[in-house]
Amino acid sequence: MAGRTNTPGQTVSRRLLSVLDCFDVAHPALSLTEVATRSGLPVSTARRLINELRDWGGLERLADGRYRIGMRLWTIGTLAPQQRGLREAALPYMHDLFQATQENLQLTVLEGTQALCIEKISSTKAVPTHTHIGGRLPLHATGVGKAILAFSGEELLRAVVEPGLTRMTPHTITQPGRLAAVLNEVRRSGVAYSYEEMTLGAVSVAAPILRLDGGVRGALGIVAHSRAALDRLAPAVRTAALGITRSTH
Amino acid sequence: MAGRTNTPGQTVSRRLLSVLDCFDVAHPALSLTEVATRSGLPVSTARRLINELRDWGGLERLADGRYRIGMRLWTIGTLAPQQRGLREAALPYMHDLFQATQENLQLTVLEGTQALCIEKISSTKAVPTHTHIGGRLPLHATGVGKAILAFSGEELLRAVVEPGLTRMTPHTITQPGRLAAVLNEVRRSGVAYSYEEMTLGAVSVAAPILRLDGGVRGALGIVAHSRAALDRLAPAVRTAALGITRSTH
Repeated sequence: MAGRTNTPGQTVSRRLLSVLDCFDVAHPALSLTEVATRSGLPVSTARRLINELRDWGGLERLADGRYRIGMRLWTIGTLAPQQRGLREAALPYMHDLFQATQENLQLTVLEGTQALCIEKISSTKAVPTHTHIGGRLPLHATGVGKAILAFSGEELLRAVVEPGLTRMTPHTITQPGRLAAVLNEVRRSGVAYSYEEMTLGAVSVAAPILRLDGGVRGALGIVAHSRAALDRLAPAVRTAALGITRSTH
Repeated sequence: MAGRTNTPGQTVSRRLLSVLDCFDVAHPALSLTEVATRSGLPVSTARRLINELRDWGGLERLADGRYRIGMRLWTIGTLAPQQRGLREAALPYMHDLFQATQENLQLTVLEGTQALCIEKISSTKAVPTHTHIGGRLPLHATGVGKAILAFSGEELLRAVVEPGLTRMTPHTITQPGRLAAVLNEVRRSGVAYSYEEMTLGAVSVAAPILRLDGGVRGALGIVAHSRAALDRLAPAVRTAALGITRSTH
């Protein structure tokens, strides 16, 4: 999160971008006062920047006077190559996997030290998940996160472990040594599991989508109700992830 | 397209946004010189603004020195409510429809005087289409466009007809009187067709997604190979669009 403090030397551009930074999944609609508070900008400055963004189409004004992100930013955002190429390559495989399993699917990429969900397919019949497209998941507590972490090298693992592994449920792995052992197993088997480590009542299995050079592009995961289901789903998710890996080269 | 001319009185914010406006589906990667040319900014100004956007995560630098839209803008764009709510409501219906038909599906909303594609499901078996997510389609030449136009009132129709109806293929409707008659039929039947009016070899059928007040939220369309297929697909697309309409209230 940027924009919580604003120094006098900050450029106009930086201030404009700090207005955009106020909005996230937890705060999709904000009043002028909330934007000023969250960005650290004076209300008069926030008002002027909001109006410029609004004229351009980057923000929309709601009937209650609050503001939301506008379609212009959505359209520009669709051009981001990291999600665009992977998403288009992955979708046919995700649809096949969804037809075969009818479970929730998540396609994620690494962003910073978290997994960013760039696509999902949800079934009304499947276990409810709180993952949104554009939402972030911790690497150490999710199947998709562990699949990315296992194939990303020591530097990322250190960055994840160093601030401490946040306990999401009683089942979350919080000991670095145990996490390292689990990641060894992920590298060996090619699939990563989460047993209620992120959300009680939800388990997941995921497989990495790799680059030819051995680096990781992202991970594809299935979220299900029970551990028993995972044994059946693991070969399917691994097969789909391998298909995506192959089709993106 | 904005940003082709830059006046001295233009604000810094407007210049920053004009850098973003340089990028579109046809120009997803641009060099510094291309950004300067397309935005009308001096190279030194373009370089400074590009660097600020890059530090923030809004642009990424490619190995060849060109720039592309970054994941930060994608993440912020996913918050746009117009696509977010409709897309999440529509996806389960789109997956059902895809399972039943295995044809290309498009979910669109009105943006300005065009249909903006906010979601698609493509089959490797279906007719190839050139529609991208974030891409725009003319209202008068496509099934989704006519479905939106038919339920949007006279003002939009005038804005579409006034500059002249562009001929996309020999089958495109270019006479305002004929378009008006076709739109009457769309209002009567609840579905809109395009018979090779946008692309030779591709036909489509679409249905509007309506608001309770009678306005239109968007349209769902199927693109197929032959007119014969459309007769079979029309009830399916209309049923799915009605389901989405109902689930968003």
